[in-house]
Amino acid sequence: MGSTPPGLTWALIEAARTRIAPLVRATPVLTSTTLDAQAGARLFFKCENLQKGGAFKARGASNAVFSLPDAQVRRGVATHSSGNHAAALARAAHLRGVPAYIVMPQNAPLAKRAAVERLGARITLCEPMQAARERAAAEVIAATGAVLIHPYDDLAVMAGQATVAVELLEQVPDLDLVLAPVSGGGLLSGIAVATRTLRANAQVVGVEPEGADDAARSLRAGHIVPCEKPQTIADGLRATVGVRPFEEIRRYVTDIVTVPDTAIVAAMRSLWEIMKLVVEPSGAAAYAAVAAGRTEVRGKRVGVVLSGGNVDLDSLPWITRARE
Amino acid sequence: MGSTPPGLTWALIEAARTRIAPLVRATPVLTSTTLDAQAGARLFFKCENLQKGGAFKARGASNAVFSLPDAQVRRGVATHSSGNHAAALARAAHLRGVPAYIVMPQNAPLAKRAAVERLGARITLCEPMQAARERAAAEVIAATGAVLIHPYDDLAVMAGQATVAVELLEQVPDLDLVLAPVSGGGLLSGIAVATRTLRANAQVVGVEPEGADDAARSLRAGHIVPCEKPQTIADGLRATVGVRPFEEIRRYVTDIVTVPDTAIVAAMRSLWEIMKLVVEPSGAAAYAAVAAGRTEVRGKRVGVVLSGGNVDLDSLPWITRARE
Repeated sequence: MGSTPPGLTWALIEAARTRIAPLVRATPVLTSTTLDAQAGARLFFKCENLQKGGAFKARGASNAVFSLPDAQVRRGVATHSSGNHAAALARAAHLRGVPAYIVMPQNAPLAKRAAVERLGARITLCEPMQAARERAAAEVIAATGAVLIHPYDDLAVMAGQATVAVELLEQVPDLDLVLAPVSGGGLLSGIAVATRTLRANAQVVGVEPEGADDAARSLRAGHIVPCEKPQTIADGLRATVGVRPFEEIRRYVTDIVTVPDTAIVAAMRSLWEIMKLVVEPSGAAAYAAVAAGRTEVRGKRVGVVLSGGNVDLDSLPWITRARE
Repeated sequence: MGSTPPGLTWALIEAARTRIAPLVRATPVLTSTTLDAQAGARLFFKCENLQKGGAFKARGASNAVFSLPDAQVRRGVATHSSGNHAAALARAAHLRGVPAYIVMPQNAPLAKRAAVERLGARITLCEPMQAARERAAAEVIAATGAVLIHPYDDLAVMAGQATVAVELLEQVPDLDLVLAPVSGGGLLSGIAVATRTLRANAQVVGVEPEGADDAARSLRAGHIVPCEKPQTIADGLRATVGVRPFEEIRRYVTDIVTVPDTAIVAAMRSLWEIMKLVVEPSGAAAYAAVAAGRTEVRGKRVGVVLSGGNVDLDSLPWITRARE
C-alpha cells in the first residue's frame, strides 16, 4: 500500500483522444449573455449532457474498452454501477463486439436497467450495499473471465475523461478557470492533468455537494476521507474519491468547493430555462458553484463542465417540491 | 387588393444575413443516432431553441428593426403579440436604442409579460380578442409614431427567418428535405425561398397541428382559409398564415402535413429525453411529423427545425397528464 500508483500522463491522454475520436461526440460549447451578466464573467459551458449516452462517461468507458488487447477483452468487461458508467460501458462493449456484465442493486430504477439491457449487457442484481455489489462483481468476473472496468479508479478511464478538457481548450483556448464536478474523481483528475499540460496558468476547481463532500475534506486532510452516508440529490456525485484520481487532484486542483442541494436545483433550473439544456443535478453542480457564489469568477473566462443530462422527466425536483 | 405584393427575394435574404450576423446566434446543428435509427433517416436538428431569446424570432425582428432608416425607427417599434415575437422585438429595439411598444392580452402569462418588461418594452394590456389587439396597437401607433412590425406578414421579418435555412445549408449542404413548423408562415416561407435558391432539388415541407391546420387547407384550396378556432397545445402555431408568406409557400413548399397534439407532446418528450434539449411544443412539431410517420423520410437526409424552447417548466404536458 505504500507505493504510489503510476500516474495519469499526457501520453495516455493523447492516445485516448485518438482512440475514442470515432466513438464519442465532440460536444459543443454554448454560452449565454444572460448567465454571463449574472455572473460578471464569461462562461463557456462544455455540454457533455449532449455526449453519447447523455454523459461524459462514454469517453472513459470507450477508452478503457478499446485500449484492452483482443485476447484480454474477448471474454467481456464488467462493472458494478447503476449509473451513467454502466450504460457507457455497455455501449463501448457493444461497439467492440464483446459482452458486458453489469452488477446493479435491486432497487436501481427500471429505466436505467432497461437502458443497459437495450445495449445488450447482461445484468446481475444484488443487494444495494457496496460490499454486496463488489462481491457480486467478483463472482461474475470469476465465472466469465471478464475484465473489471472501474468507473473512475482506472488510468484508462481517467485518460478518456481528460479529453473533455482537451476538446474544451481547443474550442476556447484562453480560459482562466475550469470548473467540474467531483465524485470518484475520474473527470476532475483528467481535466486537471490536461489543463495543467495545455494551459498551465489556468486553475481547475472541483465542485461537490455539501452532503457528499469527501473530496473537499480529503484535499484539506491530504489523504482520502471516505464519505460515510452521502446525502444529495446529485445521484452521480455520491462516490468517494478514488486513489488514482486523488493523486492527480491533490497535485493539480486548486480547490474543491461545496454547494447545497438547493443551489444545485436552482442551477439546474436556470440551465433548462435559459440555456434550454436538459442537465441532471450532478451535471449542474459546477454551474451551481458560480450561481451561488461559491468560487470567485468575476472578470474571468470560465469553462463550466455540464457533465450529464440523464434525468427522470416524470419527477423534476421543482415540481415535486411544488406538490408537497 | 388585386395586386400581388412584392415577394421575398434572395437579395433581401442575403442582406438580412449580413445585417443580423452580429445580433443573433449561429445555432448548432445536432444529431442523434438513436433518433436516426428510429426514423430510418439522417436527421439534422437545427437548434433555434438555442437562439437568442430561445426562438428563431430573434432573426426576423432584428432584421426588421435594423433595416429601418434612423428617421423612421426613432420613435420606436410596436407589435401585438404575447409570444416569442414580442420578446424578440423588445430585444431588437433595445439593441437599436429605440422604444418598443407591445400590446398584450390581459390574460398573457405573467412570465411572458415580465420577460418583455425586463427588455425595457412598454406594455399595453387589452382584451384578449384579435380585434381588440389590433385596435390597441393602432392607438399606440397613432399616439407614439412607432412603426408596426408584424410578426410574419412582413418581408423583412420573412427575410430574417430565412437565414435559418441559409445557415443550415452551410452546416449540412446535402439535404434532401427540410421540415419546419408553420403558423403565420414567416419561418416556412423564408426557409422555402432560401432552400429553393441554395439547393433547388431539396424539398421543403411544412408541419402544422391538426387543430390549427389553416395552412394545409389553404395550400389545398389555393387561397388562404383562416382557422376559426385553433385548438392545439402548440401556442406558437395558432395564427393563420399571412398573405406575403402564403405567396411563397404556395410556390415553393411541396406539402404541409398535420400532426395531432399527442404526437407533438411525444416528440417534445423524445427531444428532451434523448437530445437533452428543452424544446417547446411548437418547436417539436416538425420532428413530430417524422416520429409519427406523417411525412416520408426513409433513407433521406432531413433538416428538422426546432423552432423554439420557451416553455413553462412548472407545467409540463406529461406531468400535468399524470396528475389527472
